[in-house]
Amino acid sequence: MMGHLWKAFRELAFGSSVEVQGQLVKSPSKRQNVELKAEKIEVVGNCDAKDFPLKYKERHPLEYLRQYPHLRCRTNVLGSILRVRSEATAAIHSFFKDNGFVHIHTPIITSNDCEGAGELFQVEPSSKIKVPEENFFNVPAFLTVSGQLHLEVMSGAFTQVFTFGPTFRAENSQSRRHLAEFYMVEAEISFLENLQDLMQVMEGLFKTTTMTVLSNCPEDVELCHKFIAPGQKDRLEHMLKNNFLIISYTEAVEILKQASQNFTFCPEWGADLHTEHEKYLVKHCGNMPVFVINYPLKLKPFYMRDNEDSPQHTVAAVDLLVPGVGELFGGSLREERYHFLEQQLARSGLTEAYQWYLDLRRFGSVPHGGFGMGFERYLQCILGIDNIKDVIPFPRFTHSCLL
Amino acid sequence: MMGHLWKAFRELAFGSSVEVQGQLVKSPSKRQNVELKAEKIEVVGNCDAKDFPLKYKERHPLEYLRQYPHLRCRTNVLGSILRVRSEATAAIHSFFKDNGFVHIHTPIITSNDCEGAGELFQVEPSSKIKVPEENFFNVPAFLTVSGQLHLEVMSGAFTQVFTFGPTFRAENSQSRRHLAEFYMVEAEISFLENLQDLMQVMEGLFKTTTMTVLSNCPEDVELCHKFIAPGQKDRLEHMLKNNFLIISYTEAVEILKQASQNFTFCPEWGADLHTEHEKYLVKHCGNMPVFVINYPLKLKPFYMRDNEDSPQHTVAAVDLLVPGVGELFGGSLREERYHFLEQQLARSGLTEAYQWYLDLRRFGSVPHGGFGMGFERYLQCILGIDNIKDVIPFPRFTHSCLL
Repeated sequence: MMGHLWKAFRELAFGSSVEVQGQLVKSPSKRQNVELKAEKIEVVGNCDAKDFPLKYKERHPLEYLRQYPHLRCRTNVLGSILRVRSEATAAIHSFFKDNGFVHIHTPIITSNDCEGAGELFQVEPSSKIKVPEENFFNVPAFLTVSGQLHLEVMSGAFTQVFTFGPTFRAENSQSRRHLAEFYMVEAEISFLENLQDLMQVMEGLFKTTTMTVLSNCPEDVELCHKFIAPGQKDRLEHMLKNNFLIISYTEAVEILKQASQNFTFCPEWGADLHTEHEKYLVKHCGNMPVFVINYPLKLKPFYMRDNEDSPQHTVAAVDLLVPGVGELFGGSLREERYHFLEQQLARSGLTEAYQWYLDLRRFGSVPHGGFGMGFERYLQCILGIDNIKDVIPFPRFTHSCLL
Repeated sequence: MMGHLWKAFRELAFGSSVEVQGQLVKSPSKRQNVELKAEKIEVVGNCDAKDFPLKYKERHPLEYLRQYPHLRCRTNVLGSILRVRSEATAAIHSFFKDNGFVHIHTPIITSNDCEGAGELFQVEPSSKIKVPEENFFNVPAFLTVSGQLHLEVMSGAFTQVFTFGPTFRAENSQSRRHLAEFYMVEAEISFLENLQDLMQVMEGLFKTTTMTVLSNCPEDVELCHKFIAPGQKDRLEHMLKNNFLIISYTEAVEILKQASQNFTFCPEWGADLHTEHEKYLVKHCGNMPVFVINYPLKLKPFYMRDNEDSPQHTVAAVDLLVPGVGELFGGSLREERYHFLEQQLARSGLTEAYQWYLDLRRFGSVPHGGFGMGFERYLQCILGIDNIKDVIPFPRFTHSCLL
């Protein structure tokens, strides 16, 4: 090594940024394809190695890295996860564009407060600003929990629409599957009359996106599979090679009732499926993703389409359960019939607030349906990442909003 | 026409959704390529035409349509605008992907409250929820005004990054150029050392995206150009064919001082450029987009790179002014030198809050720069739409948050 290189190396701590000139040559090592024979190295920005929380050749646990949201992206593993996230984002946009969907930016701030989707964040001008006493928007305003109803508006103009943006829940949860701010991919399809057609799009989205990611950044996926989730590669291939399964809610409850396992929540027709139940069902289905369809009407929100069955009254709803993550997609046919919807709204005391939504059924209604997919859960599922906080650049949850 | 068709027509009001079977044939009319010779028409959802606010063959003003955010997307003009918006979104993602940028979801909720970018919205769990007295996030939390600082974090890991998402201002404004919720395209590039290189990316983004949109949905663009903004087609071609211009802030002030026009705000070195000034400069430059560079240090935020010039102390900032819209892009080189940034932060009393941002300069800093483009303003600019409320599906502004 030449003398002037040593000078640079003396200043060169781990974490520094450098400018290197040299020749890119085939590497003799098996662990890399090429290496750079440096002729000139210049330190662009040196690094205070003593205080730098990332250490040379150390494999830091993901929990440790979470303390440093401004630096953790510089590690191999976060770098790989975030590149996969970027590729998956592009792949999802492509999937919908290739299939003729129109992209819609559904609103983040909304005056819809009563969809019943859980805890809401409210939005007001910062207290530092002097404003008149009434609300900035004249009405109470909230962060969106779903773009679905706004997508339904758009599905009256464009046959197929999708949105891909942030959604919010003020849930007091530290779970490895929940965030206060997370991303949802949502789609709505007009002239769609059965769950079968909807499930086909859901399965297509999952498989096409995943194949694209695997082919566009194989090394990044492999790094996660190798160092974080051994065995995940085979589990994912198994999911991609086979057809997703379909069972009804009623069948699911029967399966759970016959299980030898003792559940904390006793499985019963009419009750919600809990995480323990979802896990069991996925395992029961050979660790394949499984669609659960036709849920009790009483469990689901007003907009889902009444199956008019009896004695067990259900709606045309569908959830997709996947290994490791549980619920990944939720969807349904929407109640497009004016009088059915009117009755559901009246029953929920929402008639006045949802007059505009009823209007969609008064003026040229069409059968339609749609779904939402949790994007972070999707990433957890394909990469095998246990904690949702590690697949988003800046996680927000109870007691934490760093940076 | 066959008898059974008449039956359908009797029920068939404007706005209904229908299922039609027939033959697609070449149209004898000059105004369309094909027409459908209907053999069977079925009304899927009829329309209460009396109450339907959109009338057959009437051209409704955009102001009128704004009252019906759940129905206006069904008109030709909003349909075209929103399809262009969807195409532009895809084109922007493609531009960055093709140029090797990594896509980053910068956070919507942030604890950064003091960037000085204007009025903030604060976020808290809805008052309906019972929570302990402290903040949900332990710190006051706000809606983001820009993803820049978070992108800078990521530019320490990936050489080129971009984000494309919603940003917020609680501005009490009813202007035709401002919204409380709007979309920004932001990019950050490492190892970038001069404004020239940055402006090249900005101009490339504008031109490539626009060319893609023009080639992917020519009819939608044409509809806007023909019915809403006559002459816009030529103006846009003029912008695409020629190089954008570059003048310094100091030159801009000289031009304004020598103008025969009387300004409400007297042009003066050290003062902000107002809308009237921007308009004059664009006209002065032959209605071409013009980059204005090197602004007074005192006008700009702490993170912009000091040009170390005198006696007129400037920073390496750049704004792009475009015909009809004014400021479309804002960008700068960022202050990557630890001690310069430290001093700027101290001067603004922000040292403590931005310790993490200083860290980026302590641990392997690199010269870098970036920009943001207002997406709605971009759409206004290419389509010639006067009011920003007409290029976003669900506009949010003072006193208005419909749906």
